[in-house]
Amino acid sequence: MAAMAESAAGRMPAAEPGTGDDRVLVDFQTDPSHYRHWRLAIDGPVATLAMDVAEDGGLRDGYELKLNSYDLGVDIELYDAIQRLRFEHPEVRTVVITSVREKIFCAGANIRMLAQSPHPWKVNFCKFTNETRSGIEDATACSGQTYLAALNGTASGGGYELALACGHIILADDRSSVVSLPELPLLGVLPGTGGLTRVTDKRLVRRDLADYFATKPEGIGGRKAVDWRLVDEVVPPTRWAESVAARAAELAAKSSRPAGAAGAELTPLGKTRTGEEISYRYVSARLDRALGAATITVRGPEEDPPADAYGIKKQGAAFWPLATTRELDDLILDLRTNELELGTWVFRTDGDPRRVLAYDQLLVGNAGDWLVNEIVLYLKRTLKRLDVTSRSLIALIEPGSCFAGSLFELALAADRSYMLAGVFEDVDPDADPAVIAVNEMNSGPLPMGNGLTRLQTRFFGNPEALAEAEKRTGQLLQAEQAEELGLVTFAPDDIDWEEEVRIGVEERSSFSPDALTGMEANYRFAGPETMETKIFGRLTAWQNWIFTRPNASGPDGALTKYGTGQRASFDRKRV
Amino acid sequence: MAAMAESAAGRMPAAEPGTGDDRVLVDFQTDPSHYRHWRLAIDGPVATLAMDVAEDGGLRDGYELKLNSYDLGVDIELYDAIQRLRFEHPEVRTVVITSVREKIFCAGANIRMLAQSPHPWKVNFCKFTNETRSGIEDATACSGQTYLAALNGTASGGGYELALACGHIILADDRSSVVSLPELPLLGVLPGTGGLTRVTDKRLVRRDLADYFATKPEGIGGRKAVDWRLVDEVVPPTRWAESVAARAAELAAKSSRPAGAAGAELTPLGKTRTGEEISYRYVSARLDRALGAATITVRGPEEDPPADAYGIKKQGAAFWPLATTRELDDLILDLRTNELELGTWVFRTDGDPRRVLAYDQLLVGNAGDWLVNEIVLYLKRTLKRLDVTSRSLIALIEPGSCFAGSLFELALAADRSYMLAGVFEDVDPDADPAVIAVNEMNSGPLPMGNGLTRLQTRFFGNPEALAEAEKRTGQLLQAEQAEELGLVTFAPDDIDWEEEVRIGVEERSSFSPDALTGMEANYRFAGPETMETKIFGRLTAWQNWIFTRPNASGPDGALTKYGTGQRASFDRKRV
Repeated sequence: MAAMAESAAGRMPAAEPGTGDDRVLVDFQTDPSHYRHWRLAIDGPVATLAMDVAEDGGLRDGYELKLNSYDLGVDIELYDAIQRLRFEHPEVRTVVITSVREKIFCAGANIRMLAQSPHPWKVNFCKFTNETRSGIEDATACSGQTYLAALNGTASGGGYELALACGHIILADDRSSVVSLPELPLLGVLPGTGGLTRVTDKRLVRRDLADYFATKPEGIGGRKAVDWRLVDEVVPPTRWAESVAARAAELAAKSSRPAGAAGAELTPLGKTRTGEEISYRYVSARLDRALGAATITVRGPEEDPPADAYGIKKQGAAFWPLATTRELDDLILDLRTNELELGTWVFRTDGDPRRVLAYDQLLVGNAGDWLVNEIVLYLKRTLKRLDVTSRSLIALIEPGSCFAGSLFELALAADRSYMLAGVFEDVDPDADPAVIAVNEMNSGPLPMGNGLTRLQTRFFGNPEALAEAEKRTGQLLQAEQAEELGLVTFAPDDIDWEEEVRIGVEERSSFSPDALTGMEANYRFAGPETMETKIFGRLTAWQNWIFTRPNASGPDGALTKYGTGQRASFDRKRV
Repeated sequence: MAAMAESAAGRMPAAEPGTGDDRVLVDFQTDPSHYRHWRLAIDGPVATLAMDVAEDGGLRDGYELKLNSYDLGVDIELYDAIQRLRFEHPEVRTVVITSVREKIFCAGANIRMLAQSPHPWKVNFCKFTNETRSGIEDATACSGQTYLAALNGTASGGGYELALACGHIILADDRSSVVSLPELPLLGVLPGTGGLTRVTDKRLVRRDLADYFATKPEGIGGRKAVDWRLVDEVVPPTRWAESVAARAAELAAKSSRPAGAAGAELTPLGKTRTGEEISYRYVSARLDRALGAATITVRGPEEDPPADAYGIKKQGAAFWPLATTRELDDLILDLRTNELELGTWVFRTDGDPRRVLAYDQLLVGNAGDWLVNEIVLYLKRTLKRLDVTSRSLIALIEPGSCFAGSLFELALAADRSYMLAGVFEDVDPDADPAVIAVNEMNSGPLPMGNGLTRLQTRFFGNPEALAEAEKRTGQLLQAEQAEELGLVTFAPDDIDWEEEVRIGVEERSSFSPDALTGMEANYRFAGPETMETKIFGRLTAWQNWIFTRPNASGPDGALTKYGTGQRASFDRKRV
């Protein structure tokens, strides 16, 4: 197996030389010493994350990252910075996002990159950038790390959408700096990285003004940008530095982040990857290309949890819940981006469920601790990433597994679950039967994007069933009871198991991948919608539709023609 | 001008012979004497609407409507029946939807029809069927006319989705009748006529069971269908007739529909249509093909309203609010289906705003009357149809217009509005300046699909602005005040008017039609989502995406290959 080489450009080989697999894969692991596109500076409670995109630093060939435009590689660094600020810098209470360029904050996603990218790349790219922007809002709302957009120049398209994810927006009042959403008039696509949704639902811009704004590529600046609620304040260049600093300090003063705490360093993940397997310390995946499936195994903790928050901090990135979450997060991103044809993910766990519950107890009991809070929030975001992943998710619950509490969320996130009733008589007739358990982690700290827990979503409109399940908190439940409570989908016995599971996985590989994506994206979000689910649902689905249409991506489409000096030519039928 | 000939097949010529416009257009006007696909029987409080689809009765050539499968023509008749039951049959309290076929309720949308249809037809067809099914729910919830699905045989796909729109589902327990959603496994598309959303959000089927159900083309019947909440009850053939009758009577007994009232006959619309103009009594549209726009003018009432509900009933279908709503409804459907390249609809009104307010007062004052209730609900549904219409909507508010109360909803539904400040000096310097008015009709009876009024949606998150606007109830507001209150988008004066409006309309025609559709579908629904907006948003957008994908509609796609004996071949990339 080829140990992962660190790579500044976010690329990694798919496999060892000579294996015949010469794909260059996207690598989501980086650290500040490798950043090419961002400058991170920390000054007490205020961090400044300044965009400084290297024109020649594109993740793929064929485009230049001019005017602080971005591609996936730029966003991978941004994601890394956001994660490290949360874990490694408890002292940071305000993060100022700005640019080192004159008159330019950020021109948004690189258009040549989008134009040359195949459909799946566009979709994956937008999904990841959306998740990163939701992560900014999560830090602001739940971590006491407020993001402040200091737009020292024009913010267009994705650049303005990045600002929209921040809790406060300051725009330079210099007669040239504006905010704009030029996607529709110039490119024939949507401001799809949350732009349309956040303008009306977060910034509360009136919908007719929002309509006008999104049709004016020249953008809006100055007083009007404030009056229309597009930004929170405009500040002249003469007072820029002091105003930004004052606002950053003011936001920092409201934070509950601890003073004097030491951060938890996000040390490099020990990851190995071949064409058949991806392995970390606790998480591994077997890639079955013939079946079109990946089998993901999460191993439970090998030792009992530390006694308290002090013990957690001593373990740092090695602490089982944090290590597992990081590994799972990286694996999701790796498979999602690099293994498009593995359409089904089968989740297994391996370990002692009592020990998982003990770790959960430690987390619940120390919920007020900043690091514990970060770990649980990170697990929440990672599970949300799973919810919006366009892969069929199947959980297999067998003897020796540990789908308990926080790990049971994997089964709840799955589209369906199979739990063995009894044991495998031929394998280990004396084994303990499989068990699952729910606990407090399933009833609050890990909500989905729709604002409900996975249990609430599962039992949507059926509060009695929800109450029955939650009454079993901490109990180890065997298959019959789990099925009776509605906590697993099927509970076949030894005789039926192999056939039922095989059919369940194989038939998934026989269905239309697109229809599965659409079905799962609907079923997984029963009940209410939030701004977040609207972004990943309504907005994203429309954008994906537009991306497939010749008016955007055809040879005469607007996205294709942009910058060529030729006009797009549209099929004018309204659909 | 060619007067409209009634047509059983739902077709009408686009223009007079010899004009060069030989398109055959879809006609949404019909009546029970022309039905080919449904049998409507009324027995006191219970109506029975039995599906009896004529195999050779397709609206287009190239497919046979076997097994009670449907196309747009079948659904046009269904829509007509539902409307007539509401208006013409106040005595009907339960509508039983069933089939005259043995062992078959309905096989859903005709697959060959879908496979041969171009993308816009698919989308329009699904939109209209969705609206009709929402109308069934509206009748059940708001009219005291409960729909009961009596599935005397198998209900597949759209057939089951029709049942899902009903308030109660009875399935024959005969060892062969099942409900199923076979779209995904057989056709590579979604159950997109509300199916996926209603299964989880209305029927409250657990999402993992729903997943299994939608992958099993053989369907589920008997006790399991009840246990999984897919149907409300199963009844053996021996007790079928009496059980359905008993349930229908029971539902009827709960209704508040009046006893002994006379219905309002929906007499034929006086409609004329040429290639350049569509005209009714109060509504007309000028079709400007060069500009890609239709200018729609709604004329206000020419006389004062009748004194009371008795007077309304005497006028019946001629009563201005009902006549105008019917005309607007037909026009929306006509333009949406037949004029795909008219991408912008410009709304004008013409009349006395005081008179419109007087009609509104009459409606508000008689809200408890069954017919008034029906008229207002119909207007509500028609305005909702506008909200989900994929056309840019622009309101022009000029001297002589009557955008007041219920007609002001047209301006609120628009993506933007222009209101002239002052008068056209060259045209009529002595004219009264344009005015608008809000009243009680804007504050409750006409909610959008998201459950909010259009005013609430406009001022989403801004309750002070909403309160300020609603404080002006009944006042005639000139442009400056309307703009100040945020009730219109722009208020240019005589000097700027022509240029601003011209640019506003022309630039709309220069943008990508797809991007406009996506933008409008997002902006129009700020704030909360409901089952209805989820169906028209999340579900529909994913379905539209799937429809454009080769895995469904390409030469080797599942929809194309179905019934050919050949297997579909999929690009297995998950997106």
